[in-house]
Amino acid sequence: MAEAGPAPAPDPSARAAELSEAATGGDRRALARLLTAVENRTPVAEAALRVLYPQAGRAHLVGITGPPGAGKSTLVAALIGEVRAAGRSVAVIAVDPSSPITGGALLGDRVRMQAYAGDRDVFIRSMASRGHAGGLASTSGAAAAVLDACGFDLVLIETVGTGQAEVEVAAAADTTVVLEAPEMGDEVQAIKAGLLEVADLVVVNKGDRPGAQRTAAQLRAMLVAGAPRDGSPGRPRPKRPEVLITTASTGAGVPELIAALERHRAAGREAGAPAARLARAEALVWAILADRLRGSLRDERHAAATDEVLGQVAEHRLDPYGAADRLLEALLDRDG
Amino acid sequence: MAEAGPAPAPDPSARAAELSEAATGGDRRALARLLTAVENRTPVAEAALRVLYPQAGRAHLVGITGPPGAGKSTLVAALIGEVRAAGRSVAVIAVDPSSPITGGALLGDRVRMQAYAGDRDVFIRSMASRGHAGGLASTSGAAAAVLDACGFDLVLIETVGTGQAEVEVAAAADTTVVLEAPEMGDEVQAIKAGLLEVADLVVVNKGDRPGAQRTAAQLRAMLVAGAPRDGSPGRPRPKRPEVLITTASTGAGVPELIAALERHRAAGREAGAPAARLARAEALVWAILADRLRGSLRDERHAAATDEVLGQVAEHRLDPYGAADRLLEALLDRDG
Repeated sequence: MAEAGPAPAPDPSARAAELSEAATGGDRRALARLLTAVENRTPVAEAALRVLYPQAGRAHLVGITGPPGAGKSTLVAALIGEVRAAGRSVAVIAVDPSSPITGGALLGDRVRMQAYAGDRDVFIRSMASRGHAGGLASTSGAAAAVLDACGFDLVLIETVGTGQAEVEVAAAADTTVVLEAPEMGDEVQAIKAGLLEVADLVVVNKGDRPGAQRTAAQLRAMLVAGAPRDGSPGRPRPKRPEVLITTASTGAGVPELIAALERHRAAGREAGAPAARLARAEALVWAILADRLRGSLRDERHAAATDEVLGQVAEHRLDPYGAADRLLEALLDRDG
Repeated sequence: MAEAGPAPAPDPSARAAELSEAATGGDRRALARLLTAVENRTPVAEAALRVLYPQAGRAHLVGITGPPGAGKSTLVAALIGEVRAAGRSVAVIAVDPSSPITGGALLGDRVRMQAYAGDRDVFIRSMASRGHAGGLASTSGAAAAVLDACGFDLVLIETVGTGQAEVEVAAAADTTVVLEAPEMGDEVQAIKAGLLEVADLVVVNKGDRPGAQRTAAQLRAMLVAGAPRDGSPGRPRPKRPEVLITTASTGAGVPELIAALERHRAAGREAGAPAARLARAEALVWAILADRLRGSLRDERHAAATDEVLGQVAEHRLDPYGAADRLLEALLDRDG
């Protein structure tokens, strides 16, 4: 992330140390600034993460994903209420596929959130979903690590389950909750398959609507029949996901969801180092490696050759594999 | 893409040469097999692309994206009809975000497509949207190059504009069409911004519905006011996108859309090597480089060290930047 770019602040390390100390000491403005640095992938973010990452690892990271209209934001609001009532702190990263689709939280949720405006143990942050999937996963992973290091007990990562990138982000949590609304018709199977693959817990929200019980039963049947995850974002799922019913708008079923989250977490601990943590670590490290590789190809020494090679590919005078070979050779030449 | 994996066919190069020759000669089954190889990133795909890529570059690649319900599939069907009536050949890559959301084409469109079942100059292929954004972009880019090399005049790449990955795929075409349905209410601005950033042409479909003219007028106003694209998937847009109105279900406005596609293509040619082609080349080459890097880290020589380092990150004993440094060192050590 320390590529050439807009001129960095005078001393990123000093600034990072200052912000990190303030943020872990409880300064929410410093925390917000750190998250902005993470989102913009500045040198300050890199320096801060080098310090903060080793302090993280205690929070429970929970991904919440599902199709638009399933009630994710309302459920997040309800979860915050329950968690705060139990005296625990909670941070929310809302990966807002901003640009494409979703306009963000509904007015009702925003009003509900106002209740926590003065509560220092609730921290909510939206992040744009710009950038590549890898970038998005690493940015939200880094943001979660910062919030974790700052002592939040629970970090919720809310994404809309439409694009693969957003689904992967949620799936990189310790526990992934897939939300569904009650549905009519027979198309349920086809539609849900991809999302269900990443679920540790499945929640049918809007449980007061007709069809909720039937949808839950259908989902349970699918999950029984479900083959092991195929291809999709990574980690093995140790057991069949529970299917719960909530009505986030009234809070019904939310305490049961919290209990299920705890059970899933405890089971993961028993099973040793959870595979989710390994998958998350990989996403973070791969993204940094890819950034460095890109950075090297764009540095003073290689930029001209890189442009030349890519230009040849654009004009179909060179195939992309041949181009990759040449660029790798150039890189290794320099460092060898 | 030639990483270790399931045992490759005895001789990928020979198989690739055979399939490539058959496919460029008009054998649609061979073409379908090549595309399967591309989708599965097999050694045959790599060998075939090394041969076919330099033969590509003549087709007009058109990306079609937009939110679910805008009528993309219906428009694609209408475009096929027009293009075939003009005696040109057309291939469609439907990036089906299968798993998450969309169930694919509506029944009506499938029926309409049946009309082309025996037409050798129409080729339709869906591709799963599994995998990372980079992977998705390179897979669809490689598939487009194969279709291009096989002589299709027009290659349509249809994606649903919800996830960033899918939007980027469409945006890597020569000409990117963003489809919208007529809308009520004032939320248009916020919702469309991200999609509009990638548009070369904006189409308000379902033009027979109330609100179509008003939506088109609103979009035109937004595009006038629009700042240059910020951050989002790459290439500079030379001019303000045209806004057209179509009713794909009746074909109204479709000839005008085809004419606008041609104008955009001609303008790009006048402007010299289109930036879109460079962006596409970059996506292809970066994805291959990233694959090779991952492959190296997972090869016999490095796998154990890679697992050790990632395990330390998972346990928060090492920060991800430190991990990236170590892995890069290990890689360079080997090749230096």
